[in-house]
Amino acid sequence: MLIPPETLARRSTPTADGRRSARVLVGNDFSQDVRTDRGWTGWWVQRIAWFAEDGDILVLPVRPDDDFLDYVTAMTGTRKDSLSIVVPPVSETDEGTLSPARLANHDFISELEKVMVGRRITHLSALWPDPAVAALARAVGISSSMPGHGFVSQAGGVMVNSKSAFRMIAGGAGVPLPDGTVCTSPESAERAIVELLDGGPVMVKHDFLSGGRGNEILTTGEPFRPIGARRVVPIDNPSDVHSYLEERWEWLTAGGAGRPVAERYVRDSSAFFVEFLISDSGVELTGDGELLSAPYAVGQIMPSQGVEPAVFDQLVEGGRRLAEALHALGYRGILGPDAIVTPTREVLFTEFNGRITGSTHIYGRIGGRAVDGFGKDRIILERVWPGGWSTPSFTDALTTLRDAGLAYDPATRTGVILTNAFDGQNGVMYCVVAENLNTAWSADRALHPLFAA
Amino acid sequence: MLIPPETLARRSTPTADGRRSARVLVGNDFSQDVRTDRGWTGWWVQRIAWFAEDGDILVLPVRPDDDFLDYVTAMTGTRKDSLSIVVPPVSETDEGTLSPARLANHDFISELEKVMVGRRITHLSALWPDPAVAALARAVGISSSMPGHGFVSQAGGVMVNSKSAFRMIAGGAGVPLPDGTVCTSPESAERAIVELLDGGPVMVKHDFLSGGRGNEILTTGEPFRPIGARRVVPIDNPSDVHSYLEERWEWLTAGGAGRPVAERYVRDSSAFFVEFLISDSGVELTGDGELLSAPYAVGQIMPSQGVEPAVFDQLVEGGRRLAEALHALGYRGILGPDAIVTPTREVLFTEFNGRITGSTHIYGRIGGRAVDGFGKDRIILERVWPGGWSTPSFTDALTTLRDAGLAYDPATRTGVILTNAFDGQNGVMYCVVAENLNTAWSADRALHPLFAA
Repeated sequence: MLIPPETLARRSTPTADGRRSARVLVGNDFSQDVRTDRGWTGWWVQRIAWFAEDGDILVLPVRPDDDFLDYVTAMTGTRKDSLSIVVPPVSETDEGTLSPARLANHDFISELEKVMVGRRITHLSALWPDPAVAALARAVGISSSMPGHGFVSQAGGVMVNSKSAFRMIAGGAGVPLPDGTVCTSPESAERAIVELLDGGPVMVKHDFLSGGRGNEILTTGEPFRPIGARRVVPIDNPSDVHSYLEERWEWLTAGGAGRPVAERYVRDSSAFFVEFLISDSGVELTGDGELLSAPYAVGQIMPSQGVEPAVFDQLVEGGRRLAEALHALGYRGILGPDAIVTPTREVLFTEFNGRITGSTHIYGRIGGRAVDGFGKDRIILERVWPGGWSTPSFTDALTTLRDAGLAYDPATRTGVILTNAFDGQNGVMYCVVAENLNTAWSADRALHPLFAA
Repeated sequence: MLIPPETLARRSTPTADGRRSARVLVGNDFSQDVRTDRGWTGWWVQRIAWFAEDGDILVLPVRPDDDFLDYVTAMTGTRKDSLSIVVPPVSETDEGTLSPARLANHDFISELEKVMVGRRITHLSALWPDPAVAALARAVGISSSMPGHGFVSQAGGVMVNSKSAFRMIAGGAGVPLPDGTVCTSPESAERAIVELLDGGPVMVKHDFLSGGRGNEILTTGEPFRPIGARRVVPIDNPSDVHSYLEERWEWLTAGGAGRPVAERYVRDSSAFFVEFLISDSGVELTGDGELLSAPYAVGQIMPSQGVEPAVFDQLVEGGRRLAEALHALGYRGILGPDAIVTPTREVLFTEFNGRITGSTHIYGRIGGRAVDGFGKDRIILERVWPGGWSTPSFTDALTTLRDAGLAYDPATRTGVILTNAFDGQNGVMYCVVAENLNTAWSADRALHPLFAA
């Protein structure tokens, strides 16, 4: 949400009052109010290490993997021993996540205040704009250093990560959308879906899930393989829509907490993101890329490759309008609007994400800091760890890559960079830095024999 | 929502193509998606008659009371016989309300299209910004004449009438709020309420109900009489908050569809509204007034009386910031922010209403059109029909007023104006036009012997 990826100067030099300035970076995840499927994410939030600058204070749900931290700080040129890491005590079932209870824990707040002594905190940020972070900022007396504090303290983060609020705001901003609507009741959903099905398949979207896991496709025609969705549901007649909604409404609304979206599903489209930093001074494009799904998110290409200039302009223009609307609302931080480009090269926006996304550290810090020439003569192909591959630890994965001569080499400015800590099961997310998409995919294929079980 | 109260010129003159221009005004109410307690409102929406200009087409859930329509059009100077009134066929249980099904009814759409023949529709508006109205605009091919169509078509009306969205946006705009937060889960609600109770009574608010009917006050101190709330709930220890939420969460969230607000309740405050018209060209203050509650809404005073200029400026300034935020979102129409003024003269905003409110026709059309000198040497005291009073019909009420010499007289520019149709039970809403608040209240007291049973 709140971290400018590459716009912050290093801040280790002492200020006028002799105190070093420092930032507090909170490695949290979707709040439990929005998603209850995220207890596993202790490793995923460690990507916040990519954003660390000398003197920063990191708040994390678990101690980060030391090898991972060595690796990242060597890449970004941050002095690892200048960093402070604070892990709030665990209570009951929230060890993998920075729950509101952990962020409000008295011992944690005392420890954080101790670490802050002698530093002037210029900035507090989190991966996810949670009111619990705003409460933490107040508790340690630095709410004025948290951009967008007022908006986040009133749970505005829910609005800027909601697919229903996205469609309302996009509709108001005149940003092009797939035909469809926000469903405010099962009856309105049924009417909308039946009407849309006349024109082809319909995507029904959960308000808050991501990576395609909240989407289902309804079709009256031939079945097909879903992309960016859980499944394709055949509809033989309108009463099937009624039955579908009867069965799925509870899930689609997360028990009533969200409003699903129903919209035209355009087969054979590509998906892109454009990210903006929204700060007090305005809106700035920070990155872009293509999103790959099969059927869920499997990777990203940054920057976007092979997009016609006119299409790219529409992506940026629509994204900017959304960012400007949220700027007017008082949201501050990263906004990642997504859009599809249809086979007829229509640009249609599909959601926005008001948080540090799974792209921000890749283009903003790996691309923006670690890789010379990113976006000029180098691209990044980022990959979710493939099913069936296996490695026992971060260090094992790194050693394997180095031994095979496939690890990133600053001399050639090509090779594989591990992007996160070990996932606790069998993998490590990674990306390939290459001259172009062909060489990137071929480097990616070279990994198969190393890790395929 | 969309009707400018007094900014529209009369439009009965033929346009260049020989067709008369006309507007379609939809007398709808809260959508069923937001409120399910509104089947009774066939009379309440008839206040739309106050907005009618020559040649307009009114869509209403029931045939309006003819005597009421005579009365209103005589007051506004609109030619009654120039108006067209269309009532969609009733289906099952929605006779009192313009449900989405009624607005999508094929016979209704054909009839509306017939009425539109020979007229150029310059504007389509509704009392409530319902996606079903946006769908109607599309169905009859006039969506470009509906201001804010894109926002409303994606259910944006829910956002601009939500107390939780209000607090997010107000927090982002830096508009002063009572201490508190949006509750995204029972756990976060409990934490917030327990913390707030340390400082005094706490108001818990349903996301969508109005007139104080969605509010409950929790207090650890002496019980007191609720104002603007259903009741005062005594809290002896923190576990009472837990039990309260366990019992009331389902109701507070309307079964999960909304997010309640918990905020500091400041006793002995007064409540005010400021209304703005949000149009493509910007934001314009259209009216203001004081809201009277005992404990629910019982009346309004327009314009606000006895408010210090510095306090009034804060009301307008905060309201304008909210209106500008919603302008940036693409909402078009009336926005009525409410605020309390505390005994120490703090101005704290409490909600906004993105719709034609219960104030708009009073200040905008009765004040703005029917009463000369409104806001200069005349004020309006509006009153909800008091409990215990009774009249058998609109015409009876009017005759009684005239016989007693208390009906509004254009010569003296004082007296009682009936503001709506007969409520179907025992009353008619009314307002008193007077030189000042003292004479207004004394005219109001004079009605007691006429109607008290």
